[in-house]
Amino acid sequence: MQKILILGAGMSSSTLIRYLLDHSGDNNWQVTVADRDYALALSRVGGHSCGRAVSFDMNDPGSSSHLIGSHDVVVSMLPARMHSRVARYCLEQRCHMITASYVSDEMRTLDGPARETGIALINELGVDPGIDHMSSMKLVDNIRSQGGSIQLFMSSTGGLMAPEYDNNPWNYKFTWNPRNVVLAGQGMSMFIRNGRYKYIPYHQLFTRTQSTTIPGYGRFEVYPNRDSLKYREIYGLENIPTIFRGTLRRPGFCEAWNALVQLGMTDNSQEIKDLKGMSWRQFTNSFLRYDPEEKVENKVCQYLNLKHQGEVMKKLQWLGLFEEQPVNMQHGTPAQILQNLLEEKWALEKGDKDMIVMQHKIRYTLKDQLKEVTASMVVKGREAPHTAMAITVGMPVAIAVKLLLTGIIKGTGIQLPTRPAMYNPILRELETNGIRFTENTEVL
Amino acid sequence: MQKILILGAGMSSSTLIRYLLDHSGDNNWQVTVADRDYALALSRVGGHSCGRAVSFDMNDPGSSSHLIGSHDVVVSMLPARMHSRVARYCLEQRCHMITASYVSDEMRTLDGPARETGIALINELGVDPGIDHMSSMKLVDNIRSQGGSIQLFMSSTGGLMAPEYDNNPWNYKFTWNPRNVVLAGQGMSMFIRNGRYKYIPYHQLFTRTQSTTIPGYGRFEVYPNRDSLKYREIYGLENIPTIFRGTLRRPGFCEAWNALVQLGMTDNSQEIKDLKGMSWRQFTNSFLRYDPEEKVENKVCQYLNLKHQGEVMKKLQWLGLFEEQPVNMQHGTPAQILQNLLEEKWALEKGDKDMIVMQHKIRYTLKDQLKEVTASMVVKGREAPHTAMAITVGMPVAIAVKLLLTGIIKGTGIQLPTRPAMYNPILRELETNGIRFTENTEVL
Repeated sequence: MQKILILGAGMSSSTLIRYLLDHSGDNNWQVTVADRDYALALSRVGGHSCGRAVSFDMNDPGSSSHLIGSHDVVVSMLPARMHSRVARYCLEQRCHMITASYVSDEMRTLDGPARETGIALINELGVDPGIDHMSSMKLVDNIRSQGGSIQLFMSSTGGLMAPEYDNNPWNYKFTWNPRNVVLAGQGMSMFIRNGRYKYIPYHQLFTRTQSTTIPGYGRFEVYPNRDSLKYREIYGLENIPTIFRGTLRRPGFCEAWNALVQLGMTDNSQEIKDLKGMSWRQFTNSFLRYDPEEKVENKVCQYLNLKHQGEVMKKLQWLGLFEEQPVNMQHGTPAQILQNLLEEKWALEKGDKDMIVMQHKIRYTLKDQLKEVTASMVVKGREAPHTAMAITVGMPVAIAVKLLLTGIIKGTGIQLPTRPAMYNPILRELETNGIRFTENTEVL
Repeated sequence: MQKILILGAGMSSSTLIRYLLDHSGDNNWQVTVADRDYALALSRVGGHSCGRAVSFDMNDPGSSSHLIGSHDVVVSMLPARMHSRVARYCLEQRCHMITASYVSDEMRTLDGPARETGIALINELGVDPGIDHMSSMKLVDNIRSQGGSIQLFMSSTGGLMAPEYDNNPWNYKFTWNPRNVVLAGQGMSMFIRNGRYKYIPYHQLFTRTQSTTIPGYGRFEVYPNRDSLKYREIYGLENIPTIFRGTLRRPGFCEAWNALVQLGMTDNSQEIKDLKGMSWRQFTNSFLRYDPEEKVENKVCQYLNLKHQGEVMKKLQWLGLFEEQPVNMQHGTPAQILQNLLEEKWALEKGDKDMIVMQHKIRYTLKDQLKEVTASMVVKGREAPHTAMAITVGMPVAIAVKLLLTGIIKGTGIQLPTRPAMYNPILRELETNGIRFTENTEVL
């Protein structure tokens, strides 16, 4: 009997655990679900005969190490900063490990020790990073194997609402970590276009959007991600003239989000001083010039050059930023205060279903023809708790566990799913589970 | 004989050293000037019979401690981050210390030990901080002693060029630390106006300027400093409805600087990737949308909504940002690259003289009358190396050394020059040296 340990039973582990339990009988697996919240672990196991729930705290090194040591493969769905501690236990206990997160610098130092020990530390195996790597590399490798030469690579992903549940003026609710959404893009964004490096400071990011269409799902806008350049090395596209990675939103989102950025409401560097008794209207006013004779709405429109009846003002009004309701926080930065508001306004309602959207465009020359392939994926959430996010993060991880335990995935040390030996079997099985890309190639 | 040690013989120590040497004969002082650069220390002493130059490296703890121990008072003109190390040596060796810098958190922890040891650690005794504290507190204390109630406190300082040497389109050259000028205002600025807290994010800072006039010197613009709020506690103005501290520039500077901020050229978070062989025109273009058909100048005007023939474009053009000249750096952030350019364009020419400008406005009610006092100071540079900066930073420090050694300044522990016992004698002697405020009180 092979033993699988899942650390962390949160929302994004739900589909992963379901898949492993569903396949446990055929494969003679025992699936242990470990969480600080025992009741949550128990509910994920749902009484399955091959499942077992345990309570577990990473801060207790003795029992963490012991728990990990009694399994063949560990999936860490804990917060990303904990992965390298888990990896050290896996090294001690000679146990494989899989995560859906970016390889941290600390994790990277464990590559050598993992190779020596003969264990695999497989990372970046969720949706973004994960499905993006696999589907991109399949396209890239396919073009190169035919002798094609790639000139442009653009790839974007978004976590949005399924159209049927997309019912607020922002066309957005929180399906990913709210803090990451509020702070997205801070710093400087970098990409390269036709050989020209491009740098966009945070306060311009949401004005520098592009537009794209996903067949059957309409138009989206794309804002640039922080560092598109590092993907040149990861994908072996070192001399490519154009590489761009972005985040997808519904049209109009970025212009309105930019208004919050311009006001200063996404700043996370200073705490607001006089929160006690402050209303949302006063919060908004604290970013505007002093003029008690002028309405707050008018000052916002003048400051940001907005139309009073325009779409941006409608979105700001819908958030309640001009209301006399109290902020009800004791202290916080503008970003923390805004996040608090958005967590209420952008909360998922019961029955809401989300949607993960991903699109790659690759332009290449093959036999003197300039071509462009567009590959688009849309995954919608299913019955709770299987959100599109849980499905697209959990399925690749779950499939990798199976392939690792059945010996189809081999290798030791740090691994990303960028090699055909890993991405081909995973993508094939994702397809049979409804996670597939629609490809369209045009001659330009 | 009393012994004075000056650590650091840079430009800003020049007037300080001159004053102390000039007064050394009458007071029976020995003045030691210590610097890593022995020749520089020697040139500052200029062969004076009461002066002595020594070479000195803070990284050599034994000789640093020994050097400090053989003096009665130490003036640290070293970079601010070194002051707390100097202070520790002063504690060990029971020696007073004076700096022109803000009290750091680390310095603050030495207050108790300094009191126990019976030594004074006097800080914030340059121009800003320094002369600003003393002149403000004199006004504030004077109003309060008459029974007045203060409603508004605004104070601004600028290091600029004397009008006769103010000969470039920016009306600006570097007379202070260039790095601090390039990065000024990053983060969020905070002040309070008529009881309303105001927060300005960096990317709006240079659009939120005010205007003021200094009699005989014309108009200036003022942008808000980072944290005006902390001065409420320092000046005992806890419940004041309006407090604002700012930086003075000549009109038009802020609008043009804002263009650099909006482009992203002051970003210090990411290194530019392709500096090798890059021209200034390409550097500018890397912040603009990709469009090889469009002139870089046109793209800047469209992006920032500027007039082609306007003052801002003239200033950008004067900097050479549209030239094909090479950037000539191997690596760097946009802010570092811009600083490199500005250090060339905004360099002081031989014979150039600078100017320090400071202005306070205090509005108060006294015997049912609403009044406003405006106090303005202008100090121009004298013959090299006595810049206005060196004079205004060095003179208060030098006078404090004298007052400390003659027993007029007393007290132990961390001290700021906000008490009458310290600011009155220093301001009096500054006046006799031509550093004085012109006051004007109006009934509103």
